[in-house]
Amino acid sequence: MDQNGVFANLIKQLTKLPGVGQKTAQRHAFAILKMFPQEAREIGQAIIDIKERLIFCSKCRNISEVELCLICSDPRRDRTKILVVEEPSTVYAIEKTGEYRGLYHVLLGVISPLDGVSPEDIHIKELIDRLADHEVKEVIVATSPNMDGETTALYLSKTIRPLGVKVTRIALGIPVGIDIEYADEVSLVRSIEGRREL
Amino acid sequence: MDQNGVFANLIKQLTKLPGVGQKTAQRHAFAILKMFPQEAREIGQAIIDIKERLIFCSKCRNISEVELCLICSDPRRDRTKILVVEEPSTVYAIEKTGEYRGLYHVLLGVISPLDGVSPEDIHIKELIDRLADHEVKEVIVATSPNMDGETTALYLSKTIRPLGVKVTRIALGIPVGIDIEYADEVSLVRSIEGRREL
Repeated sequence: MDQNGVFANLIKQLTKLPGVGQKTAQRHAFAILKMFPQEAREIGQAIIDIKERLIFCSKCRNISEVELCLICSDPRRDRTKILVVEEPSTVYAIEKTGEYRGLYHVLLGVISPLDGVSPEDIHIKELIDRLADHEVKEVIVATSPNMDGETTALYLSKTIRPLGVKVTRIALGIPVGIDIEYADEVSLVRSIEGRREL
Repeated sequence: MDQNGVFANLIKQLTKLPGVGQKTAQRHAFAILKMFPQEAREIGQAIIDIKERLIFCSKCRNISEVELCLICSDPRRDRTKILVVEEPSTVYAIEKTGEYRGLYHVLLGVISPLDGVSPEDIHIKELIDRLADHEVKEVIVATSPNMDGETTALYLSKTIRPLGVKVTRIALGIPVGIDIEYADEVSLVRSIEGRREL
């Protein structure tokens, strides 16, 4: 088998995908080989398109095909709330629930002193700018509940609260549907701390 | 999120790959989103290329970038042996071992009375044609050890043996490295049937 050929190259390329090793890449490659040319072309083109046709929304920095994304330009969204996330993937996950009707702001990163990422390196300034028209009443911080995510949440809270805007943090606790005896200790502590009256 | 957009389309396209569901496709899509444009383009182009630049070798029907594949045109290969497989993936697997030095013949299918696949539907005639110059002394049948594979092996044996060419079948037995108590019963029976003197 030609180790520098088209087929070997496809296997090499596919291993760039997360969690795809040599074996899985091979399996994908042979599956593509058996497809109709049109089908394979659609997959290949879709991968190319995502980098060439997607841009970041000029307002919320979420991925978009147009300058102002479909969420920011949707008149039915609640413009008094902005939910702040690290990555577009979180917007995607929350939108799938269909429960949140406010706006978003994607930081495209997280403050990380250890990795040398400071507040200026992520899109915090753009978030502050969005608060200038006093339409936004609440900023909901939905960064990850780890060290960098908490640092970012704290920074946002300190920066935004003086502007007269409420800053909230998503609830941490035990996940829904879990057997409480299997919950991890930290989540358990957080869920007790965050208890609410019934 | 735009369900008809570039991003949703990529997720849909990626679920065409074997074993890739909605979640994995999403994970891949976000990973591609984070790549450099050039990287994503390489993956996409590799998928397109495989259908546009690969053809089947005119002799052995293995995948190839040129009319006569690198194995068929390699003067160092042993031309007295042809190993018959169902799909190019088996050639790939055997070539990776580096132990077999003969030629191949890819049937691109298997005789399957239930699925209405008859001997004329797969590349058996091309195999018979290759035996005409009397250079080949042995045909090794490496079809799968299931009903269709065995039917094909039997058919090949009946058709080729009258031509004075030896037809052999790959050994069935328990796989190397397994604990014998965990071997399946059928493989165990086959391994006893196929025992050899030490």
